[in-house]
Amino acid sequence: METEFIQHLRKSLGSHDRLRIGLGDDAAILDWRDRDDLVVTTDLISDEIDFRLAEVDPRRVGRKALAVNLSDLAAMGAEPVAVVVSLLLPRTPPVGTALELAVQLYDGMLPLVEQFDCILAGGDTNSWSGPLAINVTAFGSCSDQPLLRRGAAPGDVILVTGELGGSILGHHFDFTPRIAEARRLTRLGLAQVGMDISDGLLLDLSRLLNESEVAGVLDLTSIPISDAAHRLSETSGRTPLEHALADGEDFELLLTASPEHAQQIVADDLLGTPVTAIGKIVAGAGMWADQVGGKKLEPQGYLHQ
Amino acid sequence: METEFIQHLRKSLGSHDRLRIGLGDDAAILDWRDRDDLVVTTDLISDEIDFRLAEVDPRRVGRKALAVNLSDLAAMGAEPVAVVVSLLLPRTPPVGTALELAVQLYDGMLPLVEQFDCILAGGDTNSWSGPLAINVTAFGSCSDQPLLRRGAAPGDVILVTGELGGSILGHHFDFTPRIAEARRLTRLGLAQVGMDISDGLLLDLSRLLNESEVAGVLDLTSIPISDAAHRLSETSGRTPLEHALADGEDFELLLTASPEHAQQIVADDLLGTPVTAIGKIVAGAGMWADQVGGKKLEPQGYLHQ
Repeated sequence: METEFIQHLRKSLGSHDRLRIGLGDDAAILDWRDRDDLVVTTDLISDEIDFRLAEVDPRRVGRKALAVNLSDLAAMGAEPVAVVVSLLLPRTPPVGTALELAVQLYDGMLPLVEQFDCILAGGDTNSWSGPLAINVTAFGSCSDQPLLRRGAAPGDVILVTGELGGSILGHHFDFTPRIAEARRLTRLGLAQVGMDISDGLLLDLSRLLNESEVAGVLDLTSIPISDAAHRLSETSGRTPLEHALADGEDFELLLTASPEHAQQIVADDLLGTPVTAIGKIVAGAGMWADQVGGKKLEPQGYLHQ
Repeated sequence: METEFIQHLRKSLGSHDRLRIGLGDDAAILDWRDRDDLVVTTDLISDEIDFRLAEVDPRRVGRKALAVNLSDLAAMGAEPVAVVVSLLLPRTPPVGTALELAVQLYDGMLPLVEQFDCILAGGDTNSWSGPLAINVTAFGSCSDQPLLRRGAAPGDVILVTGELGGSILGHHFDFTPRIAEARRLTRLGLAQVGMDISDGLLLDLSRLLNESEVAGVLDLTSIPISDAAHRLSETSGRTPLEHALADGEDFELLLTASPEHAQQIVADDLLGTPVTAIGKIVAGAGMWADQVGGKKLEPQGYLHQ
């Protein structure tokens, strides 16, 4: 099947001036002149953990496998350059053949590859008796100062893009990685600290605070809550705010910036995407609601087992 | 488990002057100054297809996951720089816990990481109800002309390193990727065409011939047959030569070079590893034993399903 599939891919993928050697050799070779650094991330998603193949269009699964990696590049303020994709296909998928499934997964990835002018540089295609798993490794480059988790300082404002919570209702498949927004921030020098929210606001914020060795105070009334969080709340027994704080897979940017920079970012619709100030950085450790010594916030969210 | 495991890794991994940002952020950042190109390969291995977790020390499995990727870099004549590793762990492994399995898999990789002065730059660790799968993406660089599958010309000699066949008896876990040999060849400008033998000599040679749009004539009496191929032959019902031609997972280099260069490579023990001339490139298509129009050789080997 792999030979057949590579022939299909060779036909459907265009050439790219940075791709010196693509599919058909033992490895890809990319032109990396005029780049000083290489930003690399890898993420694997699998059936029953990150999606349910029996219940979803495989194109959305393929899209998600790529998008979560692009979100990690956005979290660094990096420009995507290329991706490589490994498929581990069930020999007997819920619908159709393994080859058809592979084609659909790629069909879901290609629009995103194109949107971010990224090169699909190669991959590895396997089938087995187990369920579907997809690994994507994405790599890019930062011409400006990257966004890191370390470096948040007391006095900085905590910001998030978009709205949070209820991603399970569909956003976790359909989100747009915040590449353009992050690139704009780093190009303008407005933020050097940030990450993407993949496991839940509180859990991811706690990681940023730990790396920066500071504490955070959140204004819980300011958290931007998505419609999906409200809808989910109707049946979940949890409040919309609880969903926004801990659901995860929002794939929004969590940032810190000086008050002046934060004001610029929020006021001018600078990113073309809503940005909300949700709290501030203070000295110490941990997370608090409203003020230091207020209600202590636990790092809730999705913990990988 | 992932948090615990990352803490373990942070302790066991050293720093590296090319690693600007390592574990603990959304992506790794590598120093890529003074490099013009980026060679990248990705390979996924899984339980029951590439190993049997119930029957083998997990350290050998971890080692193999990394080694097959380094072999792909060798196949390009590239120098390894960094790798990222994704684990998909069974929640209930045959022995011990998922965390213990993860630690053992990395224990198998680390000596190889060190041997090739490679950076373990990051990864993704997951567990699920399915069997074990491991994806490695390896990054390297070619300061010289790379080894490609295209470019073999009539008159060139076909060469292989080492001995072939019977890899299933243990070599597929314990082989040393031919990084040093390939680097030496490209540095000296003695070979520009080559690949590694992963799916079997005949199948892989047929791929090289197709990419180069030439034919090959093999001297079957010259094929270097491993002891393992002889041992396997005692019970398999196949000849040692058949094992050497089609078993796969030899992870030796298959090269072509001009007669002068081939003589230099073979005569002087230039690589510190035995190299054998096994045939020559001729015009046309296909593979033949002894001479064009002789016995036609079919591209047998391990076809990924």
